[in-house]
Amino acid sequence: MNDQEFMRIALELAARGTGWTSPNPMVGAVVVKDNDIVGRGWHQKAGGPHAEVHALDDAGKRAMGATIYVSLEPCHHQGRTPPCTEKILSAGIGRVVMAMRDPNPDVRGGGAEYLSKKGVSVTSGVCEAEARRLNESFIKYVTTKQPFVTLKCAATLDGRIATRTGDAKWVTGEMSRKFVHELRHANDAILVGVNTVKVDDPLLTARRGAEKSKDPIRIVLDTHLSIPETSKLLRNPSGSDTLIITGNSESSARRNAILKTGVKIIDAPVKDGRIDLSALMPRLGAMGITSLLVEGGATVAAAALQAKVVDKIYFFYAPKILGGDDGVPMCSGPGPALMSDSIPVKNIRIHRFGDDVMIEGYL
Amino acid sequence: MNDQEFMRIALELAARGTGWTSPNPMVGAVVVKDNDIVGRGWHQKAGGPHAEVHALDDAGKRAMGATIYVSLEPCHHQGRTPPCTEKILSAGIGRVVMAMRDPNPDVRGGGAEYLSKKGVSVTSGVCEAEARRLNESFIKYVTTKQPFVTLKCAATLDGRIATRTGDAKWVTGEMSRKFVHELRHANDAILVGVNTVKVDDPLLTARRGAEKSKDPIRIVLDTHLSIPETSKLLRNPSGSDTLIITGNSESSARRNAILKTGVKIIDAPVKDGRIDLSALMPRLGAMGITSLLVEGGATVAAAALQAKVVDKIYFFYAPKILGGDDGVPMCSGPGPALMSDSIPVKNIRIHRFGDDVMIEGYL
Repeated sequence: MNDQEFMRIALELAARGTGWTSPNPMVGAVVVKDNDIVGRGWHQKAGGPHAEVHALDDAGKRAMGATIYVSLEPCHHQGRTPPCTEKILSAGIGRVVMAMRDPNPDVRGGGAEYLSKKGVSVTSGVCEAEARRLNESFIKYVTTKQPFVTLKCAATLDGRIATRTGDAKWVTGEMSRKFVHELRHANDAILVGVNTVKVDDPLLTARRGAEKSKDPIRIVLDTHLSIPETSKLLRNPSGSDTLIITGNSESSARRNAILKTGVKIIDAPVKDGRIDLSALMPRLGAMGITSLLVEGGATVAAAALQAKVVDKIYFFYAPKILGGDDGVPMCSGPGPALMSDSIPVKNIRIHRFGDDVMIEGYL
Repeated sequence: MNDQEFMRIALELAARGTGWTSPNPMVGAVVVKDNDIVGRGWHQKAGGPHAEVHALDDAGKRAMGATIYVSLEPCHHQGRTPPCTEKILSAGIGRVVMAMRDPNPDVRGGGAEYLSKKGVSVTSGVCEAEARRLNESFIKYVTTKQPFVTLKCAATLDGRIATRTGDAKWVTGEMSRKFVHELRHANDAILVGVNTVKVDDPLLTARRGAEKSKDPIRIVLDTHLSIPETSKLLRNPSGSDTLIITGNSESSARRNAILKTGVKIIDAPVKDGRIDLSALMPRLGAMGITSLLVEGGATVAAAALQAKVVDKIYFFYAPKILGGDDGVPMCSGPGPALMSDSIPVKNIRIHRFGDDVMIEGYL
């Protein structure tokens, strides 16, 4: 096995932390001696030990003179846990291979230089693209203080997310819907418009069957605080907070009735009669939300795209055609006059979920 | 090499006839002796020799005792050419392997039985699914007397074929557009609505660069004969006919002006103010059109879907988002109230043309 192959194992281990590590990155590590893996670890939970600690503890004395593969530069600062660089040195590691340097401009980095100065052989940039992709939310968050925003849509082949009566049960198949629960688990927060709450009355929790899930913070854009008090969102508990974003135009009686259900109300700036999403993102970032899944509907999708806050799309297409133009479109509102003014989507990847096709891309 | 592998070569040879064999099927043949291919052939042009004749002539004396792989049951009737069964017998072929039986209920078949009775070993059904797919147009045509209809759309990821101003240059990239010219070459006819003629003023010819192409018959649905006399369709010659389908409601002066350009006008039944496509298809079939490519726009696409005349779709999605609902949708007109009443699309396949995604499926 070569450096790339060991690093891929470290990256796979890292991904096991999906949904549990925020605001930290996902990190995996393997300790290799004489071409054998003698230690494995990953960052399992924010506040818990780093990947290197798990892997070195797993390796024990076999770490002496071994190589450690770690998907992110080992930390060199005292955080909630001691610096991993010291742990690596005291374990007697001879070589450190990292996928990428620490992208966080706020922490004192220099783990690589420190280890090198101490006589450890250091290689970095192995499987860097994969590592950056795995932690794309973390990287955006630490460099911009705003959440990484993923827009998810599920439409028919002719681009309709519901019929003219609002019927959307179901557009996509079971495998796609299962993946959406993975997305909810993976993201810190989920955002919908109040119209989606009124029409679909969703729970917006992460339900992964037997597997333990982390519910995302549920966020509803509700300029005029018109959310029905009978909504499941207000009545069914979630493992995370529920935030109603309003334009601060509602009566205090209404506000108090909503607050009684245990949700939080956040007043946000309004632009052209709608919550200003560009202004909202730094606010969500300040609340520690590193990743945000926008689940619709058409108005919110269009608003997010127009506010240029979307980083990534997951567009699902179900193998069916509505065949008319009276159903609900994927985006509503005005579009550009010229095709050349459309929003380009880069790095397209295609996935299949049963008979559904999912197109992933970056904005 | 086994039967399947030789048959795949025969199928590849058959596909070289794409665009040139209608109303005949595409057929390929290879003659194999001692595991070596000693003869190759395919049906190159309607009216020309069949695949077996080319392959056996290519093999010459080496055909004696050899096996012939042919993608369709050899004909056993005197058509424009003598029966291939006799040619096979006189060449001394010992074994015939065919992908599928002749699907044409109108011809006297029995080629397989005849050869078998004459002492030739006969195997059929080798790569049958691939062979049926290759000749799906032919199979539909000979069994229903109606053309096999392919609906092609090219949209943004949010399902728009043009902007609100009608701008559609370009939705998809060069590789997709190149493939569309392959489709035009492959289909006997191409159909658009008069609105597409007015907005896009297309040529609707097959342009494949250096490769020789066969122009499809150009068909315009034009209920009120409102096609502009300045349209490229009326002014630029094509290698095939141009047909204007009208509802027979126009003045004879207008009719004569259009006829002067050399196109044909066909009066067809109207239903709900539009050309009745269900009634039109048998008419096109009677004219010898075995395959029809519907190229849009939104009204014609929806009409074809509602008339249930579409057999196959090619939906192209370009990596861009318009982000509004004022652009031209993929289908216009009323759709169903329930998602469960949408039109299911089966046997989905995904193709990539550069950064475009193309979804192929059957209705």
